[in-house]
Amino acid sequence: MIQGHGDDAYRYGREIRANFSSNVYRHVDLGPLKEHLAAQLDAIGNYPEPEPYTLETAIARMEDVPTEAVCATAGATEAIYLIAHAFQGSNSKIIGPTFSEYADACRLFAHSAALVLNSEPRGGWYPASEHFSASETDTRAAGRAMVWLCNPNNPDGRVIAKSDLMAAIEKHPETVFVIDQSYGSFTQEALMTAREAAAHQNVIQLHSMTKRYAIPGLRLGYVVANPNIIKKIRQVRMPWSVNAMAIEAGLYLCGHPDTAPIDLPALLSEAKRLRSRLEAIPGIRVVPTDTHFMLCRLAEGRAKELKDWLAHEHGILIRDASNFEGLDEGCFRIAAQTTEQNDTLAEAIKAWQEAHR
Amino acid sequence: MIQGHGDDAYRYGREIRANFSSNVYRHVDLGPLKEHLAAQLDAIGNYPEPEPYTLETAIARMEDVPTEAVCATAGATEAIYLIAHAFQGSNSKIIGPTFSEYADACRLFAHSAALVLNSEPRGGWYPASEHFSASETDTRAAGRAMVWLCNPNNPDGRVIAKSDLMAAIEKHPETVFVIDQSYGSFTQEALMTAREAAAHQNVIQLHSMTKRYAIPGLRLGYVVANPNIIKKIRQVRMPWSVNAMAIEAGLYLCGHPDTAPIDLPALLSEAKRLRSRLEAIPGIRVVPTDTHFMLCRLAEGRAKELKDWLAHEHGILIRDASNFEGLDEGCFRIAAQTTEQNDTLAEAIKAWQEAHR
Repeated sequence: MIQGHGDDAYRYGREIRANFSSNVYRHVDLGPLKEHLAAQLDAIGNYPEPEPYTLETAIARMEDVPTEAVCATAGATEAIYLIAHAFQGSNSKIIGPTFSEYADACRLFAHSAALVLNSEPRGGWYPASEHFSASETDTRAAGRAMVWLCNPNNPDGRVIAKSDLMAAIEKHPETVFVIDQSYGSFTQEALMTAREAAAHQNVIQLHSMTKRYAIPGLRLGYVVANPNIIKKIRQVRMPWSVNAMAIEAGLYLCGHPDTAPIDLPALLSEAKRLRSRLEAIPGIRVVPTDTHFMLCRLAEGRAKELKDWLAHEHGILIRDASNFEGLDEGCFRIAAQTTEQNDTLAEAIKAWQEAHR
Repeated sequence: MIQGHGDDAYRYGREIRANFSSNVYRHVDLGPLKEHLAAQLDAIGNYPEPEPYTLETAIARMEDVPTEAVCATAGATEAIYLIAHAFQGSNSKIIGPTFSEYADACRLFAHSAALVLNSEPRGGWYPASEHFSASETDTRAAGRAMVWLCNPNNPDGRVIAKSDLMAAIEKHPETVFVIDQSYGSFTQEALMTAREAAAHQNVIQLHSMTKRYAIPGLRLGYVVANPNIIKKIRQVRMPWSVNAMAIEAGLYLCGHPDTAPIDLPALLSEAKRLRSRLEAIPGIRVVPTDTHFMLCRLAEGRAKELKDWLAHEHGILIRDASNFEGLDEGCFRIAAQTTEQNDTLAEAIKAWQEAHR
């Protein structure tokens, strides 16, 4: 695996007061879930189901698809590795810049993988486009063709228009589309539903309960796809990969989907406000986003230095995004937090820019 | 993955009062650990370290080896899959009958794998021997040679004499020996130490905190090997595979190794008593064991039927061992429990035998 994911507060010796580095939206009430888990701690003393069928059944009911169309995983990350394994040796295109794990997993499982930068540069520096082009999914080399994409995309928050995506899927029935919807609960743009994913023969959809419910410590995600594909994925998974506490949490959340509610319009509105504040700082650019996190770039200087300074001087954590393939050393990613925290961040970045121009 | 692991109480509609099916020894006091975890539930809201270095450092200190000689994993099972992946395409010999995951993992990662039955039949029916022969580790086919073994072995509890094992390791420096010591805390026989494992270039030692501390729900294990080997294994692991609750538990247990103490002499003595009681039942054979669990066989009839009958009639769960490669449909495995429970089991099996002969 590569180094340099977000949420790396453990690297700094001081307290982090505001954490913008992870896309997990933490300002939700996990009280009821924690109370439930505290009462279920006896579960640590028993093996979980080797394959978490009971949880998969509950997820299937929630998503209105057959149980055979669901594979529960230890976070969306395990799903990415299982898919890369199940389809090893494929000819993969990864629509980027994006989450590095697709490329890492492809490399580990002998895919011929290429990063395809979503075209149409914006403002002369950022290669991702607002428009997804079906031609980017063409694969000409030998072997099974796969396309990997994240929707909304990490790190820029862009959503590919549903009609464009559906058109590409229909136009290339032999190409398997891996669509990571980990951030699907954090956009108001139209996305493919689980039922639509399961109805196609060439779609693998990823979901993250980690992201939706702000429980990244537990590792819980799932794949929705046609049962033929799910069968293939289940064949390469190891037993007990989803631990008992994650299963208990998943069962609880399927039964109580309104746990940890998010006021999405308010969150997106606050994200928009933060973006405007940052854009107003000379030397800072922000890519338009369809969700609560956004990709920014320093016109001059390195994001790593800004990151270290924010952590040490302000107890603020951001995500250095320079290690996303296709991005440069000026790039960083932030996820909107509370109004007060967002203002603090904007002020701090402004002070940094004023001192470094 | 294959079907048919132990601890499958979820298959039965009734309460299981005594569970002999898992090798996890549950009669330990998990109170302090549970109390600690209940106080650490906030950890579910943060990403764990992508690679659990802090935990690996704590384990290394406990085992008196360098941190670079330790890889913490989501149970010993993840370790098995990572090793098979890191050494994919090897020419593997698996000393059996044994835990099925070695063969499953080898198959998933294109090993040329062969089960080698530990020779010298005992009592005319069981292929495992008391003596491990170094010649069984000879590999003649092309490719890197690996030997996989479990010590004490699952399902029969046999320990390979340390001198025999060390001789084989020294004699075959080009062969990588994977030695699963998941049950290492449950025998009084001499085993290779972590320091000895790390000092060799061809040894990979597996440890299970799941087994030692009776926390199979959490998934926590680790590999000890030479840093060159650990580096290779770390290269194929996915980020965040060890979840935050398992890391919290691991850190606590490294700091409080006397948590959940086991009176090993008493446990092994009780296991010996149980074995004698079972051996006294006509038509039942038990393989001599060096630990608290043991492999049994019905002279006539199927273990699966006995298992179902015990579950439905007595609320007792045993492990049908007929799916271990090399064993037949009469084989079952049991792990010693309390004296009272062991007596109940022996009485119930006696009643079954009397009704079915």
